[in-house]
Amino acid sequence: MREFSVVGKDIPRPDAWLKATGKAVYTDDIKLPGMLYGKLLRSPLPHARIVNIDVSKAQALPGVKCVITGQDIPKVKYGNWRLFPATQDEYALAIDKVRFVGDEVAAVAAIDPDIAAEALQLIEVEYEELPPVFDIESALKEGAPVIHEESPNNVSVTRKIEYGDVEEGFSKADYVREDTFTVHAVSHAYLEPCSTVAQCDLDGRITLWTSTQTPYIIQCLLASTLEMRENDVRVIKPYVGGGFGGKMELRPWEFCAAFMAKLTGRPVKFTLTREEELATGRRRHPMVIYSKVGFKKDGTLVAKDLKISLDGGGYNSMGPTATFLCGNFGAMLYRYPNYRFFGQHVYTNKPPAGAMRGFGAPQSLFATETQMNMAAEELGIDPIELRIKNAMVEGDVIPDVATISSCGFIDSLKEAARMSNWKKKRKSLAPGEGIGVGCYSFISGGVFNWFNTQYPFSAAEVRVFSDGTAHLLTMASDIGQGSDTALKQILAEELGLEMKDIRVTSADTAVTPQADLGTWGSRVTLMAGNAVIDAAKKIKEKLFGAVSARFNLNVIYDMECKGGRVYAKGRPDRGMSFGEAVAMVQKAQRGEPLVARGYYTPRGKGLVTPAFSFGAQVAHVAVDQETGKVEVKKIWTAHDCGTVINPMAAEGQLEGSIHMALGYALSEQFVMDKGKTLNTTFLDYKIPAAMDMPQSKSAIVDTYEPEGPMGAKEVGEGLVSPTAPAIAEAVYHATGYRCKDLPITPEKILKGLRDTKKRKRKRS
Amino acid sequence: MREFSVVGKDIPRPDAWLKATGKAVYTDDIKLPGMLYGKLLRSPLPHARIVNIDVSKAQALPGVKCVITGQDIPKVKYGNWRLFPATQDEYALAIDKVRFVGDEVAAVAAIDPDIAAEALQLIEVEYEELPPVFDIESALKEGAPVIHEESPNNVSVTRKIEYGDVEEGFSKADYVREDTFTVHAVSHAYLEPCSTVAQCDLDGRITLWTSTQTPYIIQCLLASTLEMRENDVRVIKPYVGGGFGGKMELRPWEFCAAFMAKLTGRPVKFTLTREEELATGRRRHPMVIYSKVGFKKDGTLVAKDLKISLDGGGYNSMGPTATFLCGNFGAMLYRYPNYRFFGQHVYTNKPPAGAMRGFGAPQSLFATETQMNMAAEELGIDPIELRIKNAMVEGDVIPDVATISSCGFIDSLKEAARMSNWKKKRKSLAPGEGIGVGCYSFISGGVFNWFNTQYPFSAAEVRVFSDGTAHLLTMASDIGQGSDTALKQILAEELGLEMKDIRVTSADTAVTPQADLGTWGSRVTLMAGNAVIDAAKKIKEKLFGAVSARFNLNVIYDMECKGGRVYAKGRPDRGMSFGEAVAMVQKAQRGEPLVARGYYTPRGKGLVTPAFSFGAQVAHVAVDQETGKVEVKKIWTAHDCGTVINPMAAEGQLEGSIHMALGYALSEQFVMDKGKTLNTTFLDYKIPAAMDMPQSKSAIVDTYEPEGPMGAKEVGEGLVSPTAPAIAEAVYHATGYRCKDLPITPEKILKGLRDTKKRKRKRS
Repeated sequence: MREFSVVGKDIPRPDAWLKATGKAVYTDDIKLPGMLYGKLLRSPLPHARIVNIDVSKAQALPGVKCVITGQDIPKVKYGNWRLFPATQDEYALAIDKVRFVGDEVAAVAAIDPDIAAEALQLIEVEYEELPPVFDIESALKEGAPVIHEESPNNVSVTRKIEYGDVEEGFSKADYVREDTFTVHAVSHAYLEPCSTVAQCDLDGRITLWTSTQTPYIIQCLLASTLEMRENDVRVIKPYVGGGFGGKMELRPWEFCAAFMAKLTGRPVKFTLTREEELATGRRRHPMVIYSKVGFKKDGTLVAKDLKISLDGGGYNSMGPTATFLCGNFGAMLYRYPNYRFFGQHVYTNKPPAGAMRGFGAPQSLFATETQMNMAAEELGIDPIELRIKNAMVEGDVIPDVATISSCGFIDSLKEAARMSNWKKKRKSLAPGEGIGVGCYSFISGGVFNWFNTQYPFSAAEVRVFSDGTAHLLTMASDIGQGSDTALKQILAEELGLEMKDIRVTSADTAVTPQADLGTWGSRVTLMAGNAVIDAAKKIKEKLFGAVSARFNLNVIYDMECKGGRVYAKGRPDRGMSFGEAVAMVQKAQRGEPLVARGYYTPRGKGLVTPAFSFGAQVAHVAVDQETGKVEVKKIWTAHDCGTVINPMAAEGQLEGSIHMALGYALSEQFVMDKGKTLNTTFLDYKIPAAMDMPQSKSAIVDTYEPEGPMGAKEVGEGLVSPTAPAIAEAVYHATGYRCKDLPITPEKILKGLRDTKKRKRKRS
Repeated sequence: MREFSVVGKDIPRPDAWLKATGKAVYTDDIKLPGMLYGKLLRSPLPHARIVNIDVSKAQALPGVKCVITGQDIPKVKYGNWRLFPATQDEYALAIDKVRFVGDEVAAVAAIDPDIAAEALQLIEVEYEELPPVFDIESALKEGAPVIHEESPNNVSVTRKIEYGDVEEGFSKADYVREDTFTVHAVSHAYLEPCSTVAQCDLDGRITLWTSTQTPYIIQCLLASTLEMRENDVRVIKPYVGGGFGGKMELRPWEFCAAFMAKLTGRPVKFTLTREEELATGRRRHPMVIYSKVGFKKDGTLVAKDLKISLDGGGYNSMGPTATFLCGNFGAMLYRYPNYRFFGQHVYTNKPPAGAMRGFGAPQSLFATETQMNMAAEELGIDPIELRIKNAMVEGDVIPDVATISSCGFIDSLKEAARMSNWKKKRKSLAPGEGIGVGCYSFISGGVFNWFNTQYPFSAAEVRVFSDGTAHLLTMASDIGQGSDTALKQILAEELGLEMKDIRVTSADTAVTPQADLGTWGSRVTLMAGNAVIDAAKKIKEKLFGAVSARFNLNVIYDMECKGGRVYAKGRPDRGMSFGEAVAMVQKAQRGEPLVARGYYTPRGKGLVTPAFSFGAQVAHVAVDQETGKVEVKKIWTAHDCGTVINPMAAEGQLEGSIHMALGYALSEQFVMDKGKTLNTTFLDYKIPAAMDMPQSKSAIVDTYEPEGPMGAKEVGEGLVSPTAPAIAEAVYHATGYRCKDLPITPEKILKGLRDTKKRKRKRS
């Protein structure tokens, strides 16, 4: 096992102090001379044709500098799935019709935000109301209102996966069960609302500071909607206060800021309100999941048939990816010799669902894991034993779906059982208490190039200097997850330097090397990390050459960079300081600085991801019999994320995942009335508070991912999946109430408790 | 002759509009959260020992966050001549003694500038006065007060040049004359006072926004005085409102801003007042110039003996370079078969002299050119004829002083004579009017590496994109001279693109490629231009390869980038658009972007410069016989700057040079009293106003500099030299008064007129 000096150490993020003291500059903190403030007019109707918009009164309001509607903008649709332009279904401002309450119909820029808000009220929009649909079933009905002409059945994307022979599989099963699960929409609830500042320079180029996970994607899509060249748009990511998938697309305010900056010659800023975020922002896909699984008597899985309908809301957004991924996640964790998946993405007149942490996995795995728990009970097998029996292992391959190059799943299951004292607790908890298990597997970045980039998936430039320092330039985006710190650690490790020796410049599309697809799908550590290592290796070869020449070393010598020195392995006297070695290379290059670029694009790893993480989680709950309130007392997690780059950061990811999954399982939901979101503040939309957080204990199982940088793979995104099924199972264990439709509210539990009293309570 | 598409065209600078409308962000426009405002306490005495400084009252003033003196800072001296550390004689704040009125002794940072100013008054400094010296003669006297212990005779640097045999040369002369000239100090009078903002990040790194010509030099020297590593300091140059040599050194406020930002954890800004600038800022070196020249009867030069003493003020500043260059400029323009130079840099208790446009040439050439005019009269030869007889020509070499690879001097003389109708005007002007000639040669950047950089002298990174755009990154600094525009033109020309296709990022030491020595000595166009071409050529080779492969071209085909296309020369059908060619290269590189770096370091061009410009100027003046006031009616200039990159910009340089030289010749001077500068506003310090500007006509003679980018060399700096001698000669021609001590004030002329009336007036 390789010994690390910097990797694997608890290293606080240098930006933590800035953020904690309020000094970090987020987009909304940027103020430019002459800057205008933008506001969006949104549709009050879920489905309507725009008959006429009269902006004359708004334009006449003193202080208003610019008013635009869909009629003023280039007629270019956008959407992240550039590889399939048919999926690009959204204009920055609605042109013909509106498709959800909140759909953007006009934008105003004024000298202050209050004037802009006042101007919105002066815009007169004449709508012709159309019948709306709010759920999958209604949308799929024969004769349902058509939301997009291009999709007469309201289905925009479908996906099929099939391997083995599912019918034959089921024919051999001793035990088959069919269940339908429904899962709901939740909000990313990032603490920094979306904000954008656009400036147009003298050459007509746009610079956009924006709260985004994906500067490169914004650059490309903004350029195309503005009908500009990609490199005439520069996107800079300031500090970002969370994204969780909600900031990875081009958004109307980004377009409007840039377009109005061009029109007015003045910088334009948009910052959304919390109300706008909750009422109209992207959210996690609600789904209806039909799952049929077959087992042999001994618990061996023989077949799975999975059908998922995604409620996409008014536009595709990242729905095609979700549809794609649900099928993959349905095939994960266990060895299904025969597997079939059909997914469809359905339009409804609700705010569009988009990418959100876990992205298909929390929904798909809620079904998988709940069904495993139900089957275990019926088969009379311990749920953890049943999982171990069927668990994927290293070397497993599902063509085009998964190549498992490292896998600590079984170890995770065993460790979670050990830590939680599973066997004992399963049998001996107090009445009203329960314990349950849930598992996950997740991707380490995506392989399928839906954005159709022409660049490597990730890039890094490393510049080294004779003063013993290095500068890492990368377009990878730290949105709070800590990638700047992790990549710095990887580079420090590789070059044998310390953290303080490395400067990082990231996420500026004009300055950092092309390209990086952004922060999503847990791709950054693996992909940008590999690009960093690639660049570092090129640097090291040069340094090794200089030292070899200086000490006249035999060509067979192995060499290393460590402790700020470059030397022959095992012969530390044959070496020099890092800075001296750089100076020698520079002399040999007649003064030219030592710079290298590294790249990473996953190849030969199937369609989905270069590497999978795995893990198991056990939740212990107490359910109040009077109120139905669930208290999660403790959570034990054992997970396999390969080499841990920064344990402190990984723990933060775990805590955050539990927090987010707790809300998903128990308290968060959108209350809707005729397509309108009613709970639009954090008083009404219930994310768990600090006091709601359970005790947590975690273990990391020891694996090494060969495709990952120094053996690392995903951490923190997959972890958002196991909590809901674990809690659901624990609630069932405590009460006999089995939840198949999230969230597990007190109302549902109380109703369940009443039903249970009629039955004899069983313990597995 | 190569045909250009972009080079040689009048292209307005894109920043001109921003500057004219007040939108350009200069350093003082930068405001950061929590920023403190710094002020400097300066010595009221010209020469004194610091006995004690009590800052306690200042520190106690509410709002004051930091007070520092020389006792608080690292004891590291700075100075641009890093190659010879003995010349580095300055601390950021005086430690033991002060050496001029204005020497910095303490600094305050407070929450607003008024509080900082008030705090300065509360600092109590106890001085022990020392006897001062204010002129070269007194400083060189036996027993004079010693200003720096390391230089007991007050001479810090000397330089000798000698070639041929000067004594033997003079022995063969038919006519020998000896003259002593004195020239005075003037201010750069840049319109933007110096300003600096420093910020310290969480890793302790410093980012410095500063009004500078030399970001790289500031980075290195600031790091050393802070005892930090070079690359832990980042210097960014915002828009700069002129430098003219006055902003090319590390300055006390740059150090103090950074040091106090580290101490306080808050950003710190210093902006100098105009009074500080004029009273204490760097200035052009006053000199005493002894020159002896010998001619044959026919006007052929046979020998020159030149001795120059430079009045450096209290510190070396750029004085060593001035000392070095004076001797070189003394050897220029004419073919001296035997030449000897001795220069010495003398300390006095005045504000230090530094680099200033022309840097040694205006002084040295005032002597050369005035002496040529005097000799012409005595020899009975037309001054222009005498010059043509002795003029340097292409191919001339003076070992270690000059290698003349292109020279349009004789053509310039002829053209200036033709344009001005010299022969006729010399004989037929109205009484009180006169016409005179002056000439110049200047360097195109320096070769001698006094800064001891380990990097190439200039660097460029070029990134090209499939959308047909390019991005140029360079550390070269546009300080108003227009280098961003010129370099963009050069790149556009080389890649066959248009100006709008190119983005430029410049002068940020963390982001732009290492390194560039900065803007001085007219080095940028030639050196950075060559680096740009080097990078572009590497790009083109790749594009040519892609097109060759695509069209299966014979390897002997020549290819070109032109009109946005890449194709085989003479076969435009065998080609594709620039963007398509980039896309092909990128595909061939499996997605990796096409990026190249280019560098330039002058080699094999002697110690001084890779290329010399030349020119001749004729001035026509009218002298008011009652008041002695000189009106410059018209100036004709013919100059050789090689290929002109941007004629509009070159003309701007010419106009600016005439303006500055006019002030030098006629109106600008510092009025000093016991080392204190008395005229510290632009009301008292007389730079010429718009109405003082003469009519101007210019011609560019056709030359091609083989070492220059596309044949270009210096323009606009050398042009500051010929005006004073031309005016002096014209005044003599008009009045019979011969000025050998600048400036040519009305008082001197009136006195001269009285003397002349006693003599018969002669015309040559």
